[in-house]
Amino acid sequence: EYRSSDGPVRKMSVADVRLGTEADAAAIGELLDTFNREFDEPTPGPVWLADRIVQLLAQDTVVLLAGSGPDGLAVFRFRASIWTQALECYLAELYVVPEKRGRGLGRALNAGSRGRRARPGGRPHSSRYERGRPRRPVPLREPRIHQPRAWA
Amino acid sequence: EYRSSDGPVRKMSVADVRLGTEADAAAIGELLDTFNREFDEPTPGPVWLADRIVQLLAQDTVVLLAGSGPDGLAVFRFRASIWTQALECYLAELYVVPEKRGRGLGRALNAGSRGRRARPGGRPHSSRYERGRPRRPVPLREPRIHQPRAWA
Repeated sequence: EYRSSDGPVRKMSVADVRLGTEADAAAIGELLDTFNREFDEPTPGPVWLADRIVQLLAQDTVVLLAGSGPDGLAVFRFRASIWTQALECYLAELYVVPEKRGRGLGRALNAGSRGRRARPGGRPHSSRYERGRPRRPVPLREPRIHQPRAWA
Repeated sequence: EYRSSDGPVRKMSVADVRLGTEADAAAIGELLDTFNREFDEPTPGPVWLADRIVQLLAQDTVVLLAGSGPDGLAVFRFRASIWTQALECYLAELYVVPEKRGRGLGRALNAGSRGRRARPGGRPHSSRYERGRPRRPVPLREPRIHQPRAWA
């Protein structure tokens, strides 16, 4: 479904990204399980992961989906920033199934994260979610390794 | 106070690390503010940070302190793991004031994080906090950059 009628692979765009809900939990569990198996990481299995995602969606997590499979996902985690009265957003997982790569799904998922379309716990937009430039690096093990970004 | 009677600088150990509480909020705010000013990062100021830390200590955050100043701190953030029924622990900030470096405070703070002495929100130890080997890397922006660790 990514091929247009005249042949070339159609590139995905932000418009092809949608917000995952509880109704997508089984598909999300399958994608996460596939992700870990591809990289030879331990996985608790797709059913366990589907249950877990339902829990996390009600807490601090947003999932974006791309493709009709769905074929790719981005998992974002939110938490209160130390440095501002706002939530920080982390891209915790980003995955596209091997056979759907090269079509821009990952790029679309990442771009979708900037569209302010999603909030953890389904909460509406409020002033808690500040716009802003990326915050200072937050260290992990070694200080100042990685860049969180404010949810902008 | 880091010098023993016979001269050499005494190295700090885990025994010199203590759990920060609301009563330490002002000192924690000062350390965090000093941290950001040292690295020319924006800071909302020590008073704001002290208030913020009180909020975060009640949520998902643990602060360890070292030295009598206190002279160093480690800030840990917790969240539910995607992959296990457990909390992940992130070392969000690690700082020792310049004049107290080289005495092992940072090492002691990091070792203290492994001592299972602290739980976010003051909750007692329970099976929610599983022991375990470090989990798979969690990506941020680029997948699989950094290593969270399970709270072990």
